[in-house]
Amino acid sequence: MSNLKQQVGIKAAEFVKDGMILGLGTGSTAAYFVDEIGRRIQEEGLQITAVTTSSVTYAQAQELGIPLKGIDEVEAVDLTIDGADEVDGSLNGIKGGGGALLMEKIVATNSKDCIWIVDESKVVETLGAFKLPVEVVQYGAENLFRYFENKGYHPSFRQKNNQRYVTDMKNFIIDLDLKKIEDAQSLAAELDTTVGVVEHGLFLNMISKVIVGHEDGPEIIEK
Amino acid sequence: MSNLKQQVGIKAAEFVKDGMILGLGTGSTAAYFVDEIGRRIQEEGLQITAVTTSSVTYAQAQELGIPLKGIDEVEAVDLTIDGADEVDGSLNGIKGGGGALLMEKIVATNSKDCIWIVDESKVVETLGAFKLPVEVVQYGAENLFRYFENKGYHPSFRQKNNQRYVTDMKNFIIDLDLKKIEDAQSLAAELDTTVGVVEHGLFLNMISKVIVGHEDGPEIIEK
Repeated sequence: MSNLKQQVGIKAAEFVKDGMILGLGTGSTAAYFVDEIGRRIQEEGLQITAVTTSSVTYAQAQELGIPLKGIDEVEAVDLTIDGADEVDGSLNGIKGGGGALLMEKIVATNSKDCIWIVDESKVVETLGAFKLPVEVVQYGAENLFRYFENKGYHPSFRQKNNQRYVTDMKNFIIDLDLKKIEDAQSLAAELDTTVGVVEHGLFLNMISKVIVGHEDGPEIIEK
Repeated sequence: MSNLKQQVGIKAAEFVKDGMILGLGTGSTAAYFVDEIGRRIQEEGLQITAVTTSSVTYAQAQELGIPLKGIDEVEAVDLTIDGADEVDGSLNGIKGGGGALLMEKIVATNSKDCIWIVDESKVVETLGAFKLPVEVVQYGAENLFRYFENKGYHPSFRQKNNQRYVTDMKNFIIDLDLKKIEDAQSLAAELDTTVGVVEHGLFLNMISKVIVGHEDGPEIIEK
């Protein structure tokens, strides 16, 4: 699997041009892309400025000597390359397995173009087999959890080292085990209006293409 | 004005019964209600447990010896009494002038009943003369500010002591100077789906009655 992740990470770097302000995604696949950008800066003199989508990616990019800015220091991001946990044929998807969905969504929202890179196991017919991450305010999270339980969403609090996982923005993540999301638009709208929900992992109509890694090479699916 | 605020704060305490789990609002009017609850516990032996909507109200309630629980320690709140910055004839309103809108909305959402207490200056025909507070994630806030500017919403960052105000939840507040909100429902839906917005100060269909303070006594408006 890791060679498929590396394959698409390197392929995605072909879309990066000198002078771009680049959004760097988070996760094991995006990390290969970030590595490749570091290599191109080092070996080919690529000139870019990057914004990151998590403290983890920030550390990796800094280590590689990639010039970094905060999202609030740039007018807009030209291109963001990020991984995804699931993507369907309409190029909608679920993100947040790595716990960085809020910063990822903020960077994606401020990007002129977004491309996802995934190995072939992430491409699905219907979203929902991957648990949908929902970032929630700590205050009132127990009540929100019970609300999701009553809705039949099979919630669970994200854990890390036997403690409740806390995001970069100091929120909790509740993962919803939905199996099949029949209507992603209406679920997104419902979660958006739920008090205590900061953001959710449904990324709808946000990307222009996805690069899928296969044993016989990368495939580009465009909208 | 302060005697009208005190008038409705004391009037609201009449709706509080022994055994209730009570939500305590934030702000200058709610503070009179909290004082009165403290007095009734002290002098009349009123038995209640309270949850608070801000660190400020928490401190006041603790000082008064009101038994407190966290919102996540109770199944639901029986009754929440809170102030409001504006309320219209349909009992929709704007809250957040005190900067506690997120916790206030979480407590209101978890309450079986909510009553607002206001002096007569807060009752308006159309919402919007009071600047609408929007609580936003710090990351990306500059871009969100520009987005609101481009929408013509006349945003300004909330300041305190010449610094950007930071909420109890570590977010910023952007106040929108809208003058008149013609369609509060659609504005609420738009803000709910805006990435980076944690919550906004439009409280729609959340209360059962409002107690309005007038020189000649309190008036109760019910839905």
